[in-house]
Amino acid sequence: MKVAIVGLGLMGGSFGLALSQNMDKVTIVGFDHNRNHCTEALKYGLVDEIVTFDEIKKADLIILAIPVEGVIASLQELTDISENTTIIDLGSTKAKIVEKTPALIRKNLVAAHPMAGKEKFGPSAAFDGLYKDQIVVLCASEESGKSHLEKAVKVFEALQMQIVYMGAKEHDLHAAYISHLPHAISYALANSVLKQEDPKSILVLAAGGFRDMSRIAKSSPHMWSDIFRQNRENLLTTIDDFEKEIGSAKKMIEEENWSDLEAWMQNATTLHKIL
Amino acid sequence: MKVAIVGLGLMGGSFGLALSQNMDKVTIVGFDHNRNHCTEALKYGLVDEIVTFDEIKKADLIILAIPVEGVIASLQELTDISENTTIIDLGSTKAKIVEKTPALIRKNLVAAHPMAGKEKFGPSAAFDGLYKDQIVVLCASEESGKSHLEKAVKVFEALQMQIVYMGAKEHDLHAAYISHLPHAISYALANSVLKQEDPKSILVLAAGGFRDMSRIAKSSPHMWSDIFRQNRENLLTTIDDFEKEIGSAKKMIEEENWSDLEAWMQNATTLHKIL
Repeated sequence: MKVAIVGLGLMGGSFGLALSQNMDKVTIVGFDHNRNHCTEALKYGLVDEIVTFDEIKKADLIILAIPVEGVIASLQELTDISENTTIIDLGSTKAKIVEKTPALIRKNLVAAHPMAGKEKFGPSAAFDGLYKDQIVVLCASEESGKSHLEKAVKVFEALQMQIVYMGAKEHDLHAAYISHLPHAISYALANSVLKQEDPKSILVLAAGGFRDMSRIAKSSPHMWSDIFRQNRENLLTTIDDFEKEIGSAKKMIEEENWSDLEAWMQNATTLHKIL
Repeated sequence: MKVAIVGLGLMGGSFGLALSQNMDKVTIVGFDHNRNHCTEALKYGLVDEIVTFDEIKKADLIILAIPVEGVIASLQELTDISENTTIIDLGSTKAKIVEKTPALIRKNLVAAHPMAGKEKFGPSAAFDGLYKDQIVVLCASEESGKSHLEKAVKVFEALQMQIVYMGAKEHDLHAAYISHLPHAISYALANSVLKQEDPKSILVLAAGGFRDMSRIAKSSPHMWSDIFRQNRENLLTTIDDFEKEIGSAKKMIEEENWSDLEAWMQNATTLHKIL
């Protein structure tokens, strides 16, 4: 199988590594607008060869590992692919992608969101274990052609991922709660501390809790402002919800209503029964 | 050296384990109001023997590993100890403890805050590596007697901890930013998701980011509502700061001011230079 990966950063590069480790007889070519990414991808062995955008159309499987706007733009350029070529996009939000996919190639597309990532980015951050044992959400899969869906499932299973099926709009709201809101909170927490008079003397006290809460605040601002733009309305809904929660905690603390505060915390701890 | 540990949960129990692993010729006795904790502490080998509260006064070193109110109450009962007996308290806030320590034994006390913890609690959660390579803050140490401070430093060094000195009030504000605020945020994030119609279908998507952000929301509500009560004013200050940050992010998202949002995130990522 010939696989073409568009976008050779953390997600695309790790996909290339994982594919070559887990599938037999696979040739992996790559494309990236960023020339440095191409050089690095070859250096780190993420892909076998760098090709032009036109050449990726000859692959059996095209992986779009680029931001949502890039996915949508690329799809417009891929309407002349063979009916046997499968496209998997890894965009972080799905409703707009599914909506804007040209009808001609809608059956070719499997809209996927691997729930995997790291705060580091670029080809040098790629590693073969990024996807292993992680969830991948396949969205609006009833609109994908049967053979394309089967090919995608085979690939994700080879990567040892756990597949979950979901509607695209449902996915985007859920992703806002589980991923986009936590990123916004982490950035806000980091800024709360960094804007103090002497952040270093505060940060010297940082232990596991703060480190965990602020880790994703090191994520790429460029990538995350794009994700926030794509999922703007859902994200605003979740920020509203969160503001109500932290606001109600603040009120209980102000009013010294410790028993209600403890009950509120107790409710939060029930998370451990599910997660 | 005879060491008496008051409070045999995660902090006290782990202290016992770490002491017996790292110091020669040390006998460790323990006291806990909770009878089950005493039984478990013996079962897990956290202490050598369970004693009465009066008997702990005979130790060379008393460790108070209990909530702040308990530390303050215990100190009032310890005014008749020998001038050679050192007390180390591990309370999470320090200003009130230092203020309420009876003058008679102020020199005996070393007010310490180890920046170590886990979301799990009780004797069964104790483990010998909790303190290793972690920070311990010694507060208002100029009020501790020289020999007592030296003894405490020797113990923390044996536990391979890194010692930081700080004023008690300064510590309490810094701890609010670095530990108490993150806990309030984590509880609020968990509740934001748990109060949705179908939290399970959201949580199935949870990856590293959400897991890290919500881990400390599993911490003991009883212990944390006590810490919030002790550090109420500082915590409210930090929640205000944080609300301004998340509020400004929300405003930029509402107004689709993506370049300012990206700059705001960029500022947050500078954290990686310090932490």
